[in-house]
Amino acid sequence: MVLTTVDLSSLERRYRTNLINSIGGFKSLVLVGTKSSEGKENLSLFSSLVHIGADPALCGMVVRPNTEGQNTLGNILATGVYTINHVQAEFIEKAHQTSAKYPEGVSEFEAVGLTPEYVEGIAAPFVKESIIHFACELVERIPIEFNQTHFIIGKITQVMVPDSLVGPDGFIDLESAGTLTCSGLDSYHATTRVIRLPYAKP
Amino acid sequence: MVLTTVDLSSLERRYRTNLINSIGGFKSLVLVGTKSSEGKENLSLFSSLVHIGADPALCGMVVRPNTEGQNTLGNILATGVYTINHVQAEFIEKAHQTSAKYPEGVSEFEAVGLTPEYVEGIAAPFVKESIIHFACELVERIPIEFNQTHFIIGKITQVMVPDSLVGPDGFIDLESAGTLTCSGLDSYHATTRVIRLPYAKP
Repeated sequence: MVLTTVDLSSLERRYRTNLINSIGGFKSLVLVGTKSSEGKENLSLFSSLVHIGADPALCGMVVRPNTEGQNTLGNILATGVYTINHVQAEFIEKAHQTSAKYPEGVSEFEAVGLTPEYVEGIAAPFVKESIIHFACELVERIPIEFNQTHFIIGKITQVMVPDSLVGPDGFIDLESAGTLTCSGLDSYHATTRVIRLPYAKP
Repeated sequence: MVLTTVDLSSLERRYRTNLINSIGGFKSLVLVGTKSSEGKENLSLFSSLVHIGADPALCGMVVRPNTEGQNTLGNILATGVYTINHVQAEFIEKAHQTSAKYPEGVSEFEAVGLTPEYVEGIAAPFVKESIIHFACELVERIPIEFNQTHFIIGKITQVMVPDSLVGPDGFIDLESAGTLTCSGLDSYHATTRVIRLPYAKP
C-alpha cells in the first residue's frame, strides 16, 4: 500500500497508531526505573532509547509528559537519575504489564512482580531480574513541540553487565543475554545473528 | 563487570565505543537516502531512528555532522527531504558497506550496488531492494551540544509497504518482511517473535 500525508491523517486512529509505531523497524526495549522525590518507585516500558555518543557516554529517549500513574518524566526531572534495564523473555509479560495505567502511588514493581534493586550512590531502582543494566544522569531535556513529548538526554554513569557477555573488543553479546527487541506497540522478538561485519572501507 | 563514569572515561577508545554502542539494546536498522541540491545521491546506514508520534506521524534520528563523504545532514538541511529504507539479509553486506568513507561526490548506491528508485513528488531516492520504506520531510533540527550531533525530526509524508504485511489493525509484520535489527556497531540480527500481548490494564 502507498499512503500519503492526507491518507495517513484520515486513517482510523488505532490503525494509524499501530502502523506508524511499526514502520520504524525493530526497537530497543527497556524498563526505565525511577523514584519520586517522596521515595515512590516507578517502572515503565520504553522503546525509544537511542545511542548518542560513546565519549562522553550519552543516550537519548523520547518520553511523554506525565499522565495518570505515569511519572517517569516527572521523577527524572525531580531527581535527575534513572536506570535502564534490558528485558528478557522470562519476564516479558511482567514488563509489558508495567504499561498499564496504575493509580497514582502504586509501584509497578509491586504490581507486576519485579524486584527493585539498589546500588550505592544511585537513587533510582534497577530491575534485579534484568541481566544488562545501566544508570543515567539527566543532562538535558528538549521539548518536542509538535506533540508535547520530550527528548531526554542522559549521561551513562554506571554500567552493569556480566563479564561473560563482554567480548575482548568491548562488544556486548545481547543475544546471549536474551535481550529482546520489539516492533509496533506490543510485539516482542528474540534475535538470531545473521552476520557481524568488519569496519567498512571504500 | 561494573563500570562507573571514571572507569568509562579511562577505557581504551575502541573498547568504549563498542561497549556503549551495544549497551542500549537492539536498534532500528535503516538506510537513509538523500540528494544534494546539485542532484548527487547519498545513502547511509543509521541505527538511531525513534518513533516520536503517530498523529502527526513523526520520527526522530540522531545524525552526525557532515564529514568526508558523509552528507546526510547537509542534504537533509538543503532539500528538507529524506527516505528511510528497511534492510533485509539479502543486502546486508551492501548496506554495511555504505558506511565506508567514500570520496566526495561518489554515490553509495553505485559504490555498493543498490538501486535508487524515485516516486513522484519526492526528491530523495528510495532503495529499490528494500521491502518497507517511507519518506520524511524535515520539521526540526535540534543540535545536541554535548557531542556536536543533531536530533532530526521528520514528518512521515509517504509510506510504502506491501499490503500482505499489514494486519487488519495496522500492525506491520516486520519479521515476515525480513527486516533486520542491529546491535553495537556491526552486528546484524534476524528476529523470531516471542509473543504479542494485548493492551495492558491494571
